[in-house]
Amino acid sequence: MNPTDPSIIHGVSRLQAWSDEQRRAGKRIALVPTMGALHEGHLSLVRLARARANRVIVSIFVNPTQFAPGEDFERYPRDLESDLAKLRPLQVDAVFAPSVGDLYPAGPPTWVEVDGLTESLCGRGRPGHFRGVTTVVARLLNAAKPDIVIFGEKDYQQLATIKRMVRDLCFDLEILSGATVREPDGLALSSRNAYLAGEGRRQARALSAALVEARNAFESGERGVSRLLQVARQRIEKEPLIQLEYLELADAESLGPLLSGAGIQRSAVLAVAATIEGTRLIDNTVLEVV
Amino acid sequence: MNPTDPSIIHGVSRLQAWSDEQRRAGKRIALVPTMGALHEGHLSLVRLARARANRVIVSIFVNPTQFAPGEDFERYPRDLESDLAKLRPLQVDAVFAPSVGDLYPAGPPTWVEVDGLTESLCGRGRPGHFRGVTTVVARLLNAAKPDIVIFGEKDYQQLATIKRMVRDLCFDLEILSGATVREPDGLALSSRNAYLAGEGRRQARALSAALVEARNAFESGERGVSRLLQVARQRIEKEPLIQLEYLELADAESLGPLLSGAGIQRSAVLAVAATIEGTRLIDNTVLEVV
Repeated sequence: MNPTDPSIIHGVSRLQAWSDEQRRAGKRIALVPTMGALHEGHLSLVRLARARANRVIVSIFVNPTQFAPGEDFERYPRDLESDLAKLRPLQVDAVFAPSVGDLYPAGPPTWVEVDGLTESLCGRGRPGHFRGVTTVVARLLNAAKPDIVIFGEKDYQQLATIKRMVRDLCFDLEILSGATVREPDGLALSSRNAYLAGEGRRQARALSAALVEARNAFESGERGVSRLLQVARQRIEKEPLIQLEYLELADAESLGPLLSGAGIQRSAVLAVAATIEGTRLIDNTVLEVV
Repeated sequence: MNPTDPSIIHGVSRLQAWSDEQRRAGKRIALVPTMGALHEGHLSLVRLARARANRVIVSIFVNPTQFAPGEDFERYPRDLESDLAKLRPLQVDAVFAPSVGDLYPAGPPTWVEVDGLTESLCGRGRPGHFRGVTTVVARLLNAAKPDIVIFGEKDYQQLATIKRMVRDLCFDLEILSGATVREPDGLALSSRNAYLAGEGRRQARALSAALVEARNAFESGERGVSRLLQVARQRIEKEPLIQLEYLELADAESLGPLLSGAGIQRSAVLAVAATIEGTRLIDNTVLEVV
């Protein structure tokens, strides 16, 4: 084995033993949870982990409980060998690749659920999704026992929800987030971009472009919620393959929707979800009020 | 301060720091979660902790989320000084006495919920109760980070539910349980026994007596579910102040009810809940099939 190859760890108790050993040796451990199909967005989180900790664990697990029936759980891209090849140059110490049975023993699972933050935005279109996310992340945190856990800002609502869970359940760790990494034309990196091709892929750039246009308006002084949404919507509506699921301005902290007649007075997140030729994409930008 | 007085710790992060320090020194930590109003049942759990670990934490927290509106959250007995006096001879290292705000920051709480096990027995009469229990115990486990956590067997369904949560959420710790401690007349110790007096207290002994009579029948070879329940029920029905909530034989593992026409083929728990002059009491005995 190449000396920079990470240990591949499958079972929970083996990971816990590994983590205990690192901690006894005084090492600071960072966990980067992923569903695999790694792209430069994930790798940027691994680099952040590398910079902030002595030991880096990447978990690779396509979590069934965060997919609803009819979503893409079965066809979600899985390629452990290719993922390991991408991680090799980054000096990851351990890759945790559990089976479904490792994290979900027989019987109805114990659920972890964050109310409030999970009802708006993606929570409306994907009921149960965030419950699945918090349910698996709680398991991963107890399995890896990290000092630091790192998530991407592309999944803004997921990040907010996990921050809330970590605070509420008293997990003794620090959450860091990494900025969204984008293609040259602005499209946010996503494992699901692999489903896109041709004209669908070309039109997908409108999502990030719409956010940039609204952000430009905001930075030029526009504070009207309706007006900012209109700027973004106009850009998206130019692309006939985009089926908009939502385009919303929400309070950056509570994720509650801003009233359309109102103005932005506190930091807000402009978030979008859309389907292009069957592929669901999300993106967001934070409009900061200081 | 008396040298055997435990440290009183209020905040979560202080407890985590204390626990980290003990662990770095190679100590094995046991947590005994309680709602205070300590009696000999709790103290037996503390002694078990003392025997199995180098450091013992007792948490004292009357958890609001496990009480339904109209239950006895407000009048539940609270006397920290008296509890500390009872713990003093047992050489407890730390008492964790958080405020409600320490464990439940503002906003809707993150819930931890075990399905299946929580729907029968007490779950029917106290909807939301076990969700409250698992929600607070998950917090306490992350706050204390123990190697061992100890619960009493009097709360059989609670113990089964927490075991399931610990397994499902991959908490890296061992669960131990302590046998029910009883008054000389058989009444299971409970902080709520303090509400009983006079004739109500006298009649309360019928609950444990009923379990003993059914267990005697079982040990004499009786396997019929209906017959065993009848033996127990007859004893309870002698006492007019007892309002029976349930008297059930359930599978010892799944807690699913045994059919009344069936016979006991796997270990079962005979469980009872009743109200006596406004005081709700529970008790159980396990009928083991080897």
